Amino acid sequence: MDDNKTVRFGLLGCIRFASKFVRTVTQSTNAVIIAISDPSLETAKTFAAANNLSPETVTIYGSYEELLNDASVDAVYLTMPVTQRGKWAVTAAEKKKHLLVEKPPAQDATELERIVEACESNGVQFMDGTIWLHHQRTVKIRETMFDSGLLGDVRHMYTTMTTPVPEQVLERLTKEAMGLAGAIGELGWYPIGAALWAMSYQMPISVRALPSSVATNSVGTILSCSASLQFGSTETATAIVHCSFLSQLSTDLAISGSKGSIQMNDYVIPYKEDTAWFEYTSGAKFVDMDIGWNVTPERVTVDCGGTAESQEAMMLREFVRLVQGIKRGDLEADQRWPEISRKTQLVVDAVKKSVDIGCEVVYL
Amino acid sequence: MDDNKTVRFGLLGCIRFASKFVRTVTQSTNAVIIAISDPSLETAKTFAAANNLSPETVTIYGSYEELLNDASVDAVYLTMPVTQRGKWAVTAAEKKKHLLVEKPPAQDATELERIVEACESNGVQFMDGTIWLHHQRTVKIRETMFDSGLLGDVRHMYTTMTTPVPEQVLERLTKEAMGLAGAIGELGWYPIGAALWAMSYQMPISVRALPSSVATNSVGTILSCSASLQFGSTETATAIVHCSFLSQLSTDLAISGSKGSIQMNDYVIPYKEDTAWFEYTSGAKFVDMDIGWNVTPERVTVDCGGTAESQEAMMLREFVRLVQGIKRGDLEADQRWPEISRKTQLVVDAVKKSVDIGCEVVYL
Repeated sequence: MDDNKTVRFGLLGCIRFASKFVRTVTQSTNAVIIAISDPSLETAKTFAAANNLSPETVTIYGSYEELLNDASVDAVYLTMPVTQRGKWAVTAAEKKKHLLVEKPPAQDATELERIVEACESNGVQFMDGTIWLHHQRTVKIRETMFDSGLLGDVRHMYTTMTTPVPEQVLERLTKEAMGLAGAIGELGWYPIGAALWAMSYQMPISVRALPSSVATNSVGTILSCSASLQFGSTETATAIVHCSFLSQLSTDLAISGSKGSIQMNDYVIPYKEDTAWFEYTSGAKFVDMDIGWNVTPERVTVDCGGTAESQEAMMLREFVRLVQGIKRGDLEADQRWPEISRKTQLVVDAVKKSVDIGCEVVYL
Repeated sequence: MDDNKTVRFGLLGCIRFASKFVRTVTQSTNAVIIAISDPSLETAKTFAAANNLSPETVTIYGSYEELLNDASVDAVYLTMPVTQRGKWAVTAAEKKKHLLVEKPPAQDATELERIVEACESNGVQFMDGTIWLHHQRTVKIRETMFDSGLLGDVRHMYTTMTTPVPEQVLERLTKEAMGLAGAIGELGWYPIGAALWAMSYQMPISVRALPSSVATNSVGTILSCSASLQFGSTETATAIVHCSFLSQLSTDLAISGSKGSIQMNDYVIPYKEDTAWFEYTSGAKFVDMDIGWNVTPERVTVDCGGTAESQEAMMLREFVRLVQGIKRGDLEADQRWPEISRKTQLVVDAVKKSVDIGCEVVYL
């Protein structure tokens, strides 16, 4: 194994969801999983067996410390509960491990700042696991609609991430498991991130939770929330973001601009792994006598060429490219990714704060 | 011409938009335009010529009064500016004319109540011109998604009506022309009505305009507004409605329920006159490892059979059916249509009031 060409991953946390990452790494040509860890050695062993990770090539640890002390590990993927991510992310950075952290990467912006600073001072890459940003469709929309001018200036956005949780589980969603922001962090991370992405990471000037939209369980965890984000500068734009554990699965992203509009209903995870599409109109008008439109939506389909170019594969590819470059000494850690995380977290925090103060406006 | 089988229409107002109505009546077999009127006789004459209305069969009046005194007119279609509709609608009802009134039918609920009372006491039908409610697609969605249970209980709605007005025209949108509610009445009528339709006309318990969304011109006319509508009872539901003269054309209606969701981007006026579609998912979940969905959106296409069954034709058909029945003495005026108008107007008024009081909550 060529040390400079292969990034050796360790897993911090063996939750079921981490199987997707294992699958992606297994299919890649320049990354490998060499260690996994969980506070429960039994959980780690079960995970290894379920994911065909052979004890001959993968070391199984019963604690995060042990894995972080393994000098052969280049990079770690953190999937433990959000309330523990801050502590372990900082420790991992101090051990010179590059960090891929499930979203939300921290409980709040202060904690995230500590992680990012630890990464900077230790020269390691930080990236959160917002996979859709890496999808080829996302890149295609940027080129097709934004760069080309077909969309014009963004004026209004509507974006959601809702996924139902069984009623008996809702009460078990504690702040210890979910973090203080509850659904705003766990789910709202996506629509808030989508609005920021559409605004090319210009920050909103203010946010406000919509009072009628906020629901909590009996232990005070936020289960559902809508918020409006107001963007300023020369032109104004508004985003409505909605997240909920109480609704049917929805991952909608609608962007209206001064010239056109974009529609997707599967921006977080595309319906299919090997192909994805979005629809747009540009220069739409009612025809004479208002009996129809001058256009119908155009569908742009992106062929992802199978699993090897899935959004997970593309994220891994970008992360590995950066880690390889840093290992070779050709690159410095790319500050774009922590910056995207930081801005997203700041808006998550602001929405949470608005909920806390009775859905009043919070200025950023 | 059989008096009981043909409804004889008169036009109150000869704006360009009325051409669509003329076209629809001309294509129908049981309605005819026998008179048109405008405060400017010249405008009426020009309209007649442009729409092939021959002076041999259509009387052209230079005032609304004259047309309303024409005993051969059964029903009138009102298209004059909203600020004049109340006065003329009441006068028309007193003259025993059945009323088809462009939306919004009045400046506020009080004025609408006067119109509806005048219609009731004179035994004439009232209907506002919200055409999409009559589209066969609208009926199909009700059957396919609501009645069947595929949607489940409505939880969240997002709906828009935005259409750009040239910058030089924006300043000319006065309250005299647009009514006090501005864009909320002219455009917001649609998304507010769509949310009510989705809730089977259950009224919201509260509404709130979103402060960051409200824009006015220099004379104080509301040009843009978003609002949240909170529905109560056993289950709660939230609607986000958005209307604007400052954005690209959009007419989105997204409904998320406990089991499924519905998407349309052309609910007000379908892209094409002869066919229309909507998309839905039901029972959607991410598949194992979250690498895709268990379903992709289903598209349901409704063939409208050409212009003869366009949404305008379907609205006219319903209106004519009621007027014919009343003329024959078989039917009483159908209270369902004024009730839909009344509820829509009450919510329009509540959103307008929320804007007026600094975007505070207004309870209904």
